[in-house]
Amino acid sequence: MINRKVIMAIADGLGDRPHTMLGNKTPLEYARTPNLDDLASEGITGMMDLIAPGIPVGTDMGHLILFGYEPQHYPGRGPIEALGIGMEVKPGDIVLRCNFATVDEAGIVVDRRAGRIREKTNEIAKSINGMELEDGVVAYLEPATEHRAVLILRGDGLSDQVSDSDPKAPNDGKPYHHIEPKDASKEAQKTAYLLNVFLKKAHEILSSHPVNVERITAGKLPANFILTRGAGRMVDIEPIAEKLNINVSCIAGESTVLGVAKLAGYKTFTDSSMTGNIDTNIELKAKLAIEEIANNDIVYVHMKAPDVKGHDNKPLEKTKSIELFDQMVGMIREKLPDNVYLALAADHSTPCEVGEHTGEPVPVLIAGPSIRKDRVSQYNEMDCAYGGMGRLTGSDFVRTLHDLLGFVKKQGN
Amino acid sequence: MINRKVIMAIADGLGDRPHTMLGNKTPLEYARTPNLDDLASEGITGMMDLIAPGIPVGTDMGHLILFGYEPQHYPGRGPIEALGIGMEVKPGDIVLRCNFATVDEAGIVVDRRAGRIREKTNEIAKSINGMELEDGVVAYLEPATEHRAVLILRGDGLSDQVSDSDPKAPNDGKPYHHIEPKDASKEAQKTAYLLNVFLKKAHEILSSHPVNVERITAGKLPANFILTRGAGRMVDIEPIAEKLNINVSCIAGESTVLGVAKLAGYKTFTDSSMTGNIDTNIELKAKLAIEEIANNDIVYVHMKAPDVKGHDNKPLEKTKSIELFDQMVGMIREKLPDNVYLALAADHSTPCEVGEHTGEPVPVLIAGPSIRKDRVSQYNEMDCAYGGMGRLTGSDFVRTLHDLLGFVKKQGN
Repeated sequence: MINRKVIMAIADGLGDRPHTMLGNKTPLEYARTPNLDDLASEGITGMMDLIAPGIPVGTDMGHLILFGYEPQHYPGRGPIEALGIGMEVKPGDIVLRCNFATVDEAGIVVDRRAGRIREKTNEIAKSINGMELEDGVVAYLEPATEHRAVLILRGDGLSDQVSDSDPKAPNDGKPYHHIEPKDASKEAQKTAYLLNVFLKKAHEILSSHPVNVERITAGKLPANFILTRGAGRMVDIEPIAEKLNINVSCIAGESTVLGVAKLAGYKTFTDSSMTGNIDTNIELKAKLAIEEIANNDIVYVHMKAPDVKGHDNKPLEKTKSIELFDQMVGMIREKLPDNVYLALAADHSTPCEVGEHTGEPVPVLIAGPSIRKDRVSQYNEMDCAYGGMGRLTGSDFVRTLHDLLGFVKKQGN
Repeated sequence: MINRKVIMAIADGLGDRPHTMLGNKTPLEYARTPNLDDLASEGITGMMDLIAPGIPVGTDMGHLILFGYEPQHYPGRGPIEALGIGMEVKPGDIVLRCNFATVDEAGIVVDRRAGRIREKTNEIAKSINGMELEDGVVAYLEPATEHRAVLILRGDGLSDQVSDSDPKAPNDGKPYHHIEPKDASKEAQKTAYLLNVFLKKAHEILSSHPVNVERITAGKLPANFILTRGAGRMVDIEPIAEKLNINVSCIAGESTVLGVAKLAGYKTFTDSSMTGNIDTNIELKAKLAIEEIANNDIVYVHMKAPDVKGHDNKPLEKTKSIELFDQMVGMIREKLPDNVYLALAADHSTPCEVGEHTGEPVPVLIAGPSIRKDRVSQYNEMDCAYGGMGRLTGSDFVRTLHDLLGFVKKQGN
């Protein structure tokens, strides 16, 4: 087998629609992207539906597929968040996304985000992390970005079929919810009971926590309650890296992407200068991609900004973020070893006019050694619809790359 | 219904990648193929993934699909080998691929191929063919090409979950393996036990067989042992010919292709002048194809050479083999009755630079009466990516042909 490798550059939320502010071009059509277009001229292109035409996917699901899983392997948002912040997650764990919140004596949620608390959440979390509940079940709580946290219940006989304590009201002033089992199983009843115990004990401890006492003194809202939502059960899925016996590296600023990469058994690289926005450090990302490909089979390098600008309905800024992506790809291209394919992809469309993910397909591209070259010379949503790969699913696209590296088992003999 | 028929010409391992030795063209792009290109101008083209994008398939699986089965019907290599050499295989049979081998008194494999024995293997096989074991189980052994053979165990309560006796070491000098059950079932234990009994008895009989006595006298290695591998259980699948109530003929030189054709209930034609290489008798193949289409609904005509040249990394010779394929298709085209479609296909890609099957799609084509004509005028890996059939699976392509002949049941009313 020839020794081939691949670097995949992912522009989050890249796909868009023609926009009047851009002369009825999409941001990708409007942007000056000499590197992406050169790659289109050299390689083969196509249009990718992550799951199937018209199905929008989240960043987690999109990357799950780009990293080599099938959609049915999706373990839920909780486990991905936990992995993203570096928390250990074991098969069978019940994982919940949480907010540090402020609740008054009557149980009314004064602020779902505890005054958008950013400081010392690790100290607060530490005071309730590892709390032993009943029957050998232990609760682990670790802080995530800003007011967010992740709660894990670990033990036997637990279920993810429990309701949220988070009232998720657009405005505060509603009571937090008592957690209820969602089915009649003993496991759901036990889990709901233990979660309510945890919330009560945590509230007691947090109410007198020095950080909160300090906050109250300073006129800030205390983080005296844990609002939970989206309970998920960590499934026992084999990391792709182990299954295929390959070495893969993922360079990204976003914890969701890093979490999915960890799930897949990939090494992860991040840095505080990878901001998840338009000021991200593309030089560092490109440099790491070239360094990492020396000792890995596949390197993923991710840029979040196009998605952020799509959500914010900023077509001109989305264009800029795409030009930044082009520059990063150019830096990688300059130092690309001969045996390395360069692939371009996106996890979903985030059209500015919608401000949300949609199910429109995204352009994909593979350039590199001995690739079948098509007639497309521009990387965008419409030129690539005339590409030589045609229209394919996310799994088809990733399998195509794996096959180029010789990782796909032959069927029959 | 109009009386329509189809001849499908299959170029084994046709798909390839651009090659520097061919001015960065694929062998199919580089080859002079006036007949294939005329057909492209007259017909409709597309790109076919036998199973799905990026999945490489073996010749047996590829033809199973081209002959009308779904991938999940694959019965394993053993049954296909058995059918290929004209051995009767019944549902429930345990079929093993074998080598005639040389083993010394200590059970060490001196030569896995018994000095690459080619002569009188039928006499040797006859002495142990039909051996009655215990409990009504009978062993059938028949010789295949050169040192190869096929062993069938027929009887009740058998399993294919047994290990190999063949040590398959790259170098000889290892002992042969005792056959072990692969699971705890009674069936696997019984089968392993009976196979070990067979191997022992066969060794006793073969050690004093006149052909072997002769070989030893002549200074050759005796074929005194049967090494077994790849046990498979013949599934009960309905032959496509019966299922669709159609008459189909297959013209090929390769036993694997002939074996799959027999599985499908197709008539098979072969001849020693159909060599499976570049010196194959294309005149005879073309003549038989035209003769056979008179009394059949479908005729498959197969050429092995492009795959062989791909495996050998001989791009110029692969080009030549494709020009030969073009000539064969030209001969068929010259005498093609008006009501017969001519279809072109391949079972998989075998890029020269890889020397193995890959999962890249292959070009397909249908020309003939009232076919929807697309804008493609060349039959190759990139022009056909712009074809009117788009990108489709092997089953989609075959169903399209069956539908043109009126063999596909309407869904709904």
